[in-house]
Amino acid sequence: MWSFRKVANRIDDNRTAQAGQSPVIGLDDVLSAANAIRGIAVRTPLLENRPLNERMGRRVFIKFEGAQHTGSFKFRGAMNRLSRLNDQERAAGVVAWSSGNHAQGVAAAARMLDMPATIVMPADAPAIKMANTRALGAEIIPYDRRTQSREEIATALAKERGAVLVPSFDDPFIIAGQGTVGLEILQQATELGGRLEQVIVPCGGGGLIAGTATAIKGTCPDIQLFSAEPQAFDDTARSLVSGTREQVPPDAASICDALLAPSPGALTFPINHGLLTAGLAVSDDEVRSAMRFAFNTLKIVAEPGGSVALAALLSGKLPAGTGDVAVVISGANVDPDVFADIIRAEDPS
Amino acid sequence: MWSFRKVANRIDDNRTAQAGQSPVIGLDDVLSAANAIRGIAVRTPLLENRPLNERMGRRVFIKFEGAQHTGSFKFRGAMNRLSRLNDQERAAGVVAWSSGNHAQGVAAAARMLDMPATIVMPADAPAIKMANTRALGAEIIPYDRRTQSREEIATALAKERGAVLVPSFDDPFIIAGQGTVGLEILQQATELGGRLEQVIVPCGGGGLIAGTATAIKGTCPDIQLFSAEPQAFDDTARSLVSGTREQVPPDAASICDALLAPSPGALTFPINHGLLTAGLAVSDDEVRSAMRFAFNTLKIVAEPGGSVALAALLSGKLPAGTGDVAVVISGANVDPDVFADIIRAEDPS
Repeated sequence: MWSFRKVANRIDDNRTAQAGQSPVIGLDDVLSAANAIRGIAVRTPLLENRPLNERMGRRVFIKFEGAQHTGSFKFRGAMNRLSRLNDQERAAGVVAWSSGNHAQGVAAAARMLDMPATIVMPADAPAIKMANTRALGAEIIPYDRRTQSREEIATALAKERGAVLVPSFDDPFIIAGQGTVGLEILQQATELGGRLEQVIVPCGGGGLIAGTATAIKGTCPDIQLFSAEPQAFDDTARSLVSGTREQVPPDAASICDALLAPSPGALTFPINHGLLTAGLAVSDDEVRSAMRFAFNTLKIVAEPGGSVALAALLSGKLPAGTGDVAVVISGANVDPDVFADIIRAEDPS
Repeated sequence: MWSFRKVANRIDDNRTAQAGQSPVIGLDDVLSAANAIRGIAVRTPLLENRPLNERMGRRVFIKFEGAQHTGSFKFRGAMNRLSRLNDQERAAGVVAWSSGNHAQGVAAAARMLDMPATIVMPADAPAIKMANTRALGAEIIPYDRRTQSREEIATALAKERGAVLVPSFDDPFIIAGQGTVGLEILQQATELGGRLEQVIVPCGGGGLIAGTATAIKGTCPDIQLFSAEPQAFDDTARSLVSGTREQVPPDAASICDALLAPSPGALTFPINHGLLTAGLAVSDDEVRSAMRFAFNTLKIVAEPGGSVALAALLSGKLPAGTGDVAVVISGANVDPDVFADIIRAEDPS
């Protein structure tokens, strides 16, 4: 289990003054995560597509996390976190809250490690997400999202059972686990003869991009990292400018259900503030258009939140560059009806 | 250019008596094709999915040719064929007929080699397929499929222009090019620690499976090869039993638009007869169910004809085995409306 002591040690550590090192985790934590999940997590493909290269006038690599266990990158961090628990902690199990990808990632990791997992989910969560999480062996505790607090329920439950609470992004092991995406991008782009200049990563709470940036900047400090967010949830983009953790207005809405975090994470933001070049934001229509491009041209399934980095690239939000670009498609868990409506529609002219 | 002399030489060749060698092409032809298309064709990913492994009780590898240029394996054979033309032949260009994947594969290969390509397409072909082929720089000659013969039009055109006719499967270089799928499966399954026992490949005219079987049996003679076809177009399955090239009834219909060849090829069938264990056939409903599985679980796009091998596996048509299985998803060019209708529907209970 990580502790504030570990974080404090890191902040005092000389290494934090070096390029690419962050106060919360470092490249060595991502390398350790890669060891922990090797042969367990999927080494997802890095795809290249000629029409996309021609459209952008440069090589573009697509890191497809839809091919990860449970259809999103979330398994990486969950497995790294859970694999660090001792026997006593394993017996007591884990508790998490999530209505989507983190729920499935934790449930799958717990199942592989033969640990009990309890997920606090809204009673009105999509039946398919509840069914998938339950099929992975997790116990589901429903709550009423209008009258109850999932944090309070989960915290009380964890205390009562002696179980470990598994946050969806604000945890060093979670961040380091997601960072294995960055290590694989570097390795696979090199195998393909690429010369990366820029990397775009979807951003909700900021765990995936914090880990990915730690891995990439710790290895190749000249590569630029960009977060991609829905326009209505551009808290990381604004926070990178202001230097403080900005909030999303309570009435904000987006089709990107995986990216609705209300503000950058307490642990993820310092990392991202130190390592990212800028934050990009895209409209829901740009997301739909990117999902159609993924279907029609890349021939892969991408969920709305998983498509924001591709949307940022296709809509011309990325600053001009001449080197190669890597784009993370972070998840592919999308309802067939939603997907059908989107691929049937046409781009606004 | 291949000639009947080359084929005749092969038939006389001692190597044809060896296991895994076929009279039309041999493993060396596939290796030569791999050299010809290296760095030009995509080395498509070999995917593995835990729920699929659990459902089948064994490791299953998915060779995803939707990630190939133009969204199907057809580019491999087309590029191998076109790259063998001499300067004079290149200047005169190529002619092909096809309403779908072969058209795009030939057009893309010709464009990369800076050669003129003319594709004879039915006037009522889907607008999107015509547009894609034209966008690749090919000239399209429309014909009326009720009153005109595409073979006659294409042959006359090729003669008039001194252009080379590029068949969609009955050509040694086309077959050898498609066989690079088999080489990659062997390499990638080995990288993943797999021990292949069975391989299932979609089959229309039989070029893809003939090349794939040549590559695989020529390397690992104990691996079993199975063709997969739509039930209404099970000519290869029946021909493997009878030993002669059986015909499809003229009124046959299937949603698998890529697999509507009326009989096994003159060159492909002898190869397949020598190398395949058996032919499997699936219903259109089993194909739709496999497409939904690809969407919901594998998170990839598969067209109907590209899904028959997966459908054969999921519907329990493959003879029982204990080793690993590889399944080729051969293409992903499917109309959004068709795909939307299929993913919205549910499996028949």
